[in-house]
Amino acid sequence: MLTCTQTACLIQEWDEILILCHASPDGDTLGSGCALLRGLQALGKRARIGCADPLPQKYGYMLEGLPSFEGEPRHILSVDVADAVLLGDFQEIYGRRVELAIDHHGTHEDFAAQKWVNSSCASTTEMIYLLLKELGVVLDTYMADAIYTGLSTDTGCFRYRSVTPQTHRIAAEVIEAGADAGEINRRMFETKSIRQVEAERQVRDTMEFFCEGKCAMVQVPLSILKETGVEESELDGVATMPRQIEGVLMGITLKEKPGGEIKASVRTNLSANAADFCRRFGGGGHQGAAGCSFKDATLVEAAEKIKQACGLYLQEIKA
Amino acid sequence: MLTCTQTACLIQEWDEILILCHASPDGDTLGSGCALLRGLQALGKRARIGCADPLPQKYGYMLEGLPSFEGEPRHILSVDVADAVLLGDFQEIYGRRVELAIDHHGTHEDFAAQKWVNSSCASTTEMIYLLLKELGVVLDTYMADAIYTGLSTDTGCFRYRSVTPQTHRIAAEVIEAGADAGEINRRMFETKSIRQVEAERQVRDTMEFFCEGKCAMVQVPLSILKETGVEESELDGVATMPRQIEGVLMGITLKEKPGGEIKASVRTNLSANAADFCRRFGGGGHQGAAGCSFKDATLVEAAEKIKQACGLYLQEIKA
Repeated sequence: MLTCTQTACLIQEWDEILILCHASPDGDTLGSGCALLRGLQALGKRARIGCADPLPQKYGYMLEGLPSFEGEPRHILSVDVADAVLLGDFQEIYGRRVELAIDHHGTHEDFAAQKWVNSSCASTTEMIYLLLKELGVVLDTYMADAIYTGLSTDTGCFRYRSVTPQTHRIAAEVIEAGADAGEINRRMFETKSIRQVEAERQVRDTMEFFCEGKCAMVQVPLSILKETGVEESELDGVATMPRQIEGVLMGITLKEKPGGEIKASVRTNLSANAADFCRRFGGGGHQGAAGCSFKDATLVEAAEKIKQACGLYLQEIKA
Repeated sequence: MLTCTQTACLIQEWDEILILCHASPDGDTLGSGCALLRGLQALGKRARIGCADPLPQKYGYMLEGLPSFEGEPRHILSVDVADAVLLGDFQEIYGRRVELAIDHHGTHEDFAAQKWVNSSCASTTEMIYLLLKELGVVLDTYMADAIYTGLSTDTGCFRYRSVTPQTHRIAAEVIEAGADAGEINRRMFETKSIRQVEAERQVRDTMEFFCEGKCAMVQVPLSILKETGVEESELDGVATMPRQIEGVLMGITLKEKPGGEIKASVRTNLSANAADFCRRFGGGGHQGAAGCSFKDATLVEAAEKIKQACGLYLQEIKA
């Protein structure tokens, strides 16, 4: 395991670098990729971002005029990728060629030749901030925006238990460096289309409770996406809904994917551990937020499996 | 206008102090009151909190074992009170006797003999943190919790434009001093009762759009509170709903009060100024969030007045 300083020394020697983000890219993987890419450019290096999935339009402010280079990369690193499988369609091409993984997930599964993993950081951009400082990069407003985006989106806007004094101090630093925090938060948390409001209403109507109200679950069938025309990422906010109900220890969101797969995201309060629970289905994540998937199941079947497993799990932890 | 240091010098001389919070107390006025009260106690002074309305149960963690004293106060100050009228039923008793107002509202209306008003602070607890530091008070976990509560609740958990680097740095300091940020945020932002979910659904169903989609409004008739059994404060979150819709410049929430009065809270994006708009109806507040009330109107009438005024206002600002 590398330290921040060792990571900086390693990258210092590199050029023509491919920075891999995880598939279904979020604010932290893209924020990390964009901030690091621009930092490397400031050091005179060539680099580019790679992601198996299209980059959502709502992150456009980070992506504007993003540097790139032509041809094969000489070095490959990943940011915020907890497992090679999360590279998506890029796993086959790049999965075994990643030289360095920079990640903040406690459940990080080794896949890169070297890694710098720090699970005490609330976001991977928190690590990228430290790395850029170590590399002597002076932050411009693009880097500041990108770092802030990861800090804010991976912590529910500084709401979660993962936030430390360091997280807040880095937020202060990047706002001083020009991050437009208010506007970023408005885009990330406060802007909904009318169709999104309608889709959320339909999802909310699927809410059910079990295990004496200790568990709550909502379902997102593909039919809701088709009917309302929303993108799946526009429904990210509903994943936290079930957990918000008073007395609920485990909140679960089941999403039907186009390939037929069912993805479960699990959020937990207090004694329940989302990562422990999801590991039973081959998944993983953080203590308060984790995920797993069901390959050969309908929504109804996956829901049934989850309900049974919740009953057993709550018995085990005596909740 | 006093500075922080002058305010500290003034309070240094006082004892038997009544700290007035505003009516319909929120996290910032109570956080300010509780943190200052405990700080004064640490300095060997007697003080107590005064509020015209009952203190909501959800702030119980700040109120636990709160110091007090018997008899008439010798000095009276107010925290987070932008106008004497916001003292509620205490205005008559104390409105003209307040010696010192500590407040962060840009729209502060003079009512106290002296004031320390700093509208660049995102919350009044941000000012109380600076004051306690000036007074040489070492923060205990109660004070840290109370200061954090004001920071977080008055900024939508660090989401609003009012947040500055100083806000984040003070958040870092109070977390280090023992504030249980994750748990406070869970209580403030992430806990809803089942009846609250139902009431929010009913409120959401009243949503209407006007001025070509630039304005959105929801209504909270007393009947929803009666039917679902929720307290009015449990519906605070819905006030931001209308503004969250894409393209909406002005989001309005109308609440019917038990006395028949209609209260409007207005949230604005971009060029629209909520305080400017609300001043037309004798109200006030911040640029992004303000309020006003209608004394002799039904919900329907108040809605009609607001709609007309919105049309005129948007024409004026050419939005």
